[in-house]
Amino acid sequence: MRILGVDPGLTRCGVGVIEASADRTVKLVTVQVIQTSTSLELPDRLLALRSELAAVIEEYAPERIAVERVFAQHNLRTVMGTAQASGIAFVEAASRGIPVDLHTPSEVKAAVTGSGRANKVQVASMVSRLLSLPDEKYLPDATDALALAICNAWRGSSATSQAQALTPAQRRWREAERQAKKRQ
Amino acid sequence: MRILGVDPGLTRCGVGVIEASADRTVKLVTVQVIQTSTSLELPDRLLALRSELAAVIEEYAPERIAVERVFAQHNLRTVMGTAQASGIAFVEAASRGIPVDLHTPSEVKAAVTGSGRANKVQVASMVSRLLSLPDEKYLPDATDALALAICNAWRGSSATSQAQALTPAQRRWREAERQAKKRQ
Repeated sequence: MRILGVDPGLTRCGVGVIEASADRTVKLVTVQVIQTSTSLELPDRLLALRSELAAVIEEYAPERIAVERVFAQHNLRTVMGTAQASGIAFVEAASRGIPVDLHTPSEVKAAVTGSGRANKVQVASMVSRLLSLPDEKYLPDATDALALAICNAWRGSSATSQAQALTPAQRRWREAERQAKKRQ
Repeated sequence: MRILGVDPGLTRCGVGVIEASADRTVKLVTVQVIQTSTSLELPDRLLALRSELAAVIEEYAPERIAVERVFAQHNLRTVMGTAQASGIAFVEAASRGIPVDLHTPSEVKAAVTGSGRANKVQVASMVSRLLSLPDEKYLPDATDALALAICNAWRGSSATSQAQALTPAQRRWREAERQAKKRQ
């Protein structure tokens, strides 16, 4: 099962792809941090983010996408950009019929480190060990994206069960969207 | 000058197109409220919104798009969906090279009614008079979208001047994006 984790953000958006096996082993496929220049206008930044995110999805073909659940209560200053970035990720997933799961930060920390209150360094350290990452410096956005994908692999996907629970009309609608996308 | 106003929202997104003349007269081209079903998953709702918004842009070919500026401080419960809907509008505009302007609610009210503290009924009433709307019931999202377009027509476009102020590299990037989009 190939899973893409997305730590949404406008200035830095972490994207990490892992391959998860039934025996709970996880392997790194790719990881990067998409950055958009603050000198661009907001619409162009979102467009740049979409292009790069779409390229990752096309190249690595994840079967599920896990996105961090954003809460409006936190970081008022950056929440708009974060919300918009996550919306872009949702649409890129939905337009390809890929199920999306949301995970809270504490859920991710608990899944990866055993504690929902672990700090960034602890999360990064566990991610690094679990995926046998090469010994180099990763941005927290990168390790957070990988942590999301690992959390999704181990906690199971609510979206998958939801997708199976779609009504026939919803499934037809989803399929029609997919076909329309292909024809573009 | 053809202008599309977007009052962003996940459950109801107002979209109104006007034609504005140099003598400040404004004419209604089309108006609708895009609604997405709460029974759909969030990614599918955003995808549905994107499809309908793209259809309006393709059909009416606005030269500028005016979107309400969303503040994270207000309506915490709905701000995430609103932010995501506005992000979708930004990307649909930017991917077509259409300049986007943001206007605050009070700026829109002031432009249309003369008072930045006008209520919804006053805004709707002035919009209806300015555009000689047929005597029927419009949702506030519809009249708010039209008010945004009128505000943009009368206050001038900051995005247009910003677009002219792009660096050569930014212009090339924008153009490359547009070409890439066409090839899809």
